[in-house]
Order: sequence, then C-alpha cells, then structure tokens
Amino acid sequence: MDSKKDICDSCSSQNEECPSSSSTLLKPQRKEGIKRYIAVMSGKGGVGKSLVTGLLATSFSKKGFKVGILDADVTGPSIPKMFGLRQKVFSTGSNLLPAETPQGIKVMSLNLLLENEEMPVIWRGPIIAKVIKQFWEEVLWGQLDYLLVDLPPGTADATITVMQTIPLDGIIIIASPQELAVMIVKKAIHMAKDVDIPILGLIENMSYAVCPKCDEKLEFFGKSQAEKLADDMNIRLLGKLPIDPRIAQLCDEGKIEKYSNGSFEKVAKEILDLAK
Amino acid sequence: MDSKKDICDSCSSQNEECPSSSSTLLKPQRKEGIKRYIAVMSGKGGVGKSLVTGLLATSFSKKGFKVGILDADVTGPSIPKMFGLRQKVFSTGSNLLPAETPQGIKVMSLNLLLENEEMPVIWRGPIIAKVIKQFWEEVLWGQLDYLLVDLPPGTADATITVMQTIPLDGIIIIASPQELAVMIVKKAIHMAKDVDIPILGLIENMSYAVCPKCDEKLEFFGKSQAEKLADDMNIRLLGKLPIDPRIAQLCDEGKIEKYSNGSFEKVAKEILDLAK
Repeated sequence: MDSKKDICDSCSSQNEECPSSSSTLLKPQRKEGIKRYIAVMSGKGGVGKSLVTGLLATSFSKKGFKVGILDADVTGPSIPKMFGLRQKVFSTGSNLLPAETPQGIKVMSLNLLLENEEMPVIWRGPIIAKVIKQFWEEVLWGQLDYLLVDLPPGTADATITVMQTIPLDGIIIIASPQELAVMIVKKAIHMAKDVDIPILGLIENMSYAVCPKCDEKLEFFGKSQAEKLADDMNIRLLGKLPIDPRIAQLCDEGKIEKYSNGSFEKVAKEILDLAK
Repeated sequence: MDSKKDICDSCSSQNEECPSSSSTLLKPQRKEGIKRYIAVMSGKGGVGKSLVTGLLATSFSKKGFKVGILDADVTGPSIPKMFGLRQKVFSTGSNLLPAETPQGIKVMSLNLLLENEEMPVIWRGPIIAKVIKQFWEEVLWGQLDYLLVDLPPGTADATITVMQTIPLDGIIIIASPQELAVMIVKKAIHMAKDVDIPILGLIENMSYAVCPKCDEKLEFFGKSQAEKLADDMNIRLLGKLPIDPRIAQLCDEGKIEKYSNGSFEKVAKEILDLAK
C-alpha cells in the first residue's frame, strides 16, 4: 500500500456522480466578492480547530473586516453552537443565505440545516463532498475580506474537497503538545505541502494551563512540542494557547465573541499580516 | 435536507465498486475464532477513544483474555504509537498478520502498513471503507476473546463501514465535559441507536484534573456533563477519567501497557460483565 497518493487517484468511485471527478479537477476559482481564503487544519481531532477558527473570525471582525466561516466539518460541526446560532438558514431558490452572528460574521454549517443539532448525518464521502461544494457555490457569501474554512479531522473527503474546490491562500495548522497528536498533525502538514497550499503557520493549543489556586504552570499533555514541530516541518510558529476555562465556558454559552485575550490578538494580527 | 438517513440511502456512489453496496448489506457475520466485538466511539475527535481502546485492551489482556484491536481510524491512527509498534506487518499471500504488542495484544492499523508513520493517506470514503473491510476479512486474527474497534471521529465512511461489516456486540461512548463536545457525542449515540447496536455505556474522559502542587481539583473544560448525558440518552455511566499527565507520557513513549489505575480497572471490569 503506498503511503502517498495523488488526490483521487486512489478513489474507486471515480464516476460521473462524484463531485470530485476529473472533470471538476480544475484549479479552484476565486469568487469576485471574497478577497482572502484561509483554512484551519490539524489532521487530529479535538485540538481546537473550530475554536481557533471562531477566535480568528471574531478578532478579524472586531478589526473591521468582513468575515465568513464555512464549516467543513459536516459530521461534527461545532461553529454554530460556539456563536450561539440556532436558527435554520434561509434558502432563496437554489441559493442559501448564511446565518449571521451578533457581530456580523457570516456562517454556513450543516448544523444550520438540521431541525435538531444533535441529530447525526450518517453520510458517506460523496455526499459530504457535495455538501461542501454547495456551501461554496450556492451560499450567498456576499462581500468578504476573509473566508475562514474550518476543516474536520482527517485527510479524507471533506479535506480533499475543500482543497480541490476553494482557492485557499493559506492554511493554519493546529496542534496540541502530545507527541501522539503531533504525529497525526504532521500527516496534515504533509498533505498541505503535497498540494502546494502555503502554510501560514502553527498554533499549539492546550499548550499549558495555570492552576487558578496556586498559579502553578501545568503541562498536562506533556512538554510543548511547538518549536520542534515548527522546526522539523519548516513552518512558522504563530503562538501557543493555554487551556483557558473561560473559553470553554463562553463556547458552551454561544458567546465566543465575548472572549478577548491579548496574546491571541497578537497571533491574529500576525496571520492578517501573513495573509495580505 | 433530512437530518436522518438510513445508511447508504444518501450515497450517490452506490455502484459495484462500492464496498458497501447493497449486495454486501447483509447482517455482519461473526468470525468463528472471535467471541466478542466491542467498538469505542464518540463522534467527537480528541476525547480519548484511542486511549480508552488501548487501556481496555491492556486491562482485558492482563486479566488473561486474548485481545485484538482493529484501528478503524484510517487517516489518523493512534493505536500503534501508544503501544510502541513500529514494524510493518507481514502479509502471507492475500492475508495480513497483525502486529503484536509486548503483552500479546494483536493490532491492525493503517500506520502499520506505511513506511513512515507521518505520511498522510489522502483517501476518499470508498478506499477507507475497503481498507477497513480488509482489516476485518484479510487479517489473520486467530482466536480472540475480544476484538476492540477504535472508531475515528464523525459518522461517515469509516464508522458506517464498521457498523455494516463487523458484528458489534456493543459500543462504548466516550465524551468530554464540554457541552460543545456533548452535542457531537449525542450525534454518535443517535447513530448507534439508529442501527440497533447496544450501547454498553459512557465514559467521560478529561473529566477533571488535579493540580500536582496544591491538590486543587480543576475543571478546565467545564463541569462534568456525564450524569446528565447518560440520563438524557438513557445509557449507563461507566466512569469518569481524569486528565492524567502519566497517561500522556506513557502513550508518547509507546508504553500504555505500563499504565495501571484502580478506578479504570473498575470500569474495565464492568465492561467485561456487560459484554458477557
């Protein structure tokens, strides 16, 4: 079994119905109204991709930019809940209107199409790919300075489809300190390099925590691997985020836009500079 | 868009090449040598599915049972690394011999087929489904008391294929305390219920941590949701696992079999009783 395959070469379902069949394997086209396209990726689950996507969108938006989030995690979408979005999105003919957060960030996510956010979508890859293409082609995104794409874990259908469909200007990689996670994150970095999408840099999430009682710095998931990972893979280290109970609480309450943190703002500023 | 679909009904790639096409949609057949089949599932990534799979396998094996692990997380496999398995597996004709951990647990994982564990597999659903079927059909598992299946995040191809192919006796659900995670975990629970696979119970991982300096109990990801989740979904609460830096370290060193913990042993014992 080869470890490295060109996207789609290994797919046995290459047929007319496949939304990524060779006929559509053209270079992704930019949309006139959208200036910059950034994906947040990890390979590993549960390291904070959606969190960073939400925080970046919030930060960019507070700086006056128009921001949209395309939630490409079709089977495990977290974005609507962290922004407190519950309403179903509107459709106008063959188009969909994205939801808007209190701060005006436009969001499209599978959970905004479900009657009940807890219901599963038990879908195989071709449908997942089709949904992501719809989120890209049929959603009326309007004018945006930044479209952020929240990728699911893994390097399978959703990720492949995003990379084939959306003209990404850059990818932000999220890792956590555990070596086990870093191994999987490296898979994602290799994938991004294979398809020649620039990696803007690395954010290590859950890098450490601080005991609220005695101020001890705690490294529950092991020593930070951020410098070594960035060095090994020749990518820029953008920053390290602590485990912060305030974030978990605000996300659960749907109020991520109320979070502010000076060191994250520096990271966001650097990403804005890199994405220019 | 309907929220609830029968598996495969929504798949546009139903064709002869699809490893889950209707011709194969028979009731999964038990293997003569394998007595019990248990999957570890969450829906959410990064909550500790692989960790619980590894700890359960270790615990069962220490009690004298013959155990195998089928790692169904094809694009993000964690099992080999936590057991220190690096060698490539052997093939004998059309069959594959699983790797064996120091303690004798049999393991099959995509990472045991790669020259380099950091290389990505950029595969769409049909190939992922085919690989999982190979792990089931072509691996010489031999005599096992328990085959544990480590599922990836999501409710897409890998999970669907496992449920269609392997005659699961039960599923263990893993959650973390964040409400955001619980929402995604509920999707997985609904999926398991939809396909009538018994849920043995729920384990909440990263439930709390203890400051090693001042012994303060810390709830970084919010208050435990375990009782409420178990109650809401009418499933059994098997236990709560703390964030334990020793586990992270042992997993990173490939020595998960050296971990022991009295409260986890109680959980493992209860699962053995339930799976009888």
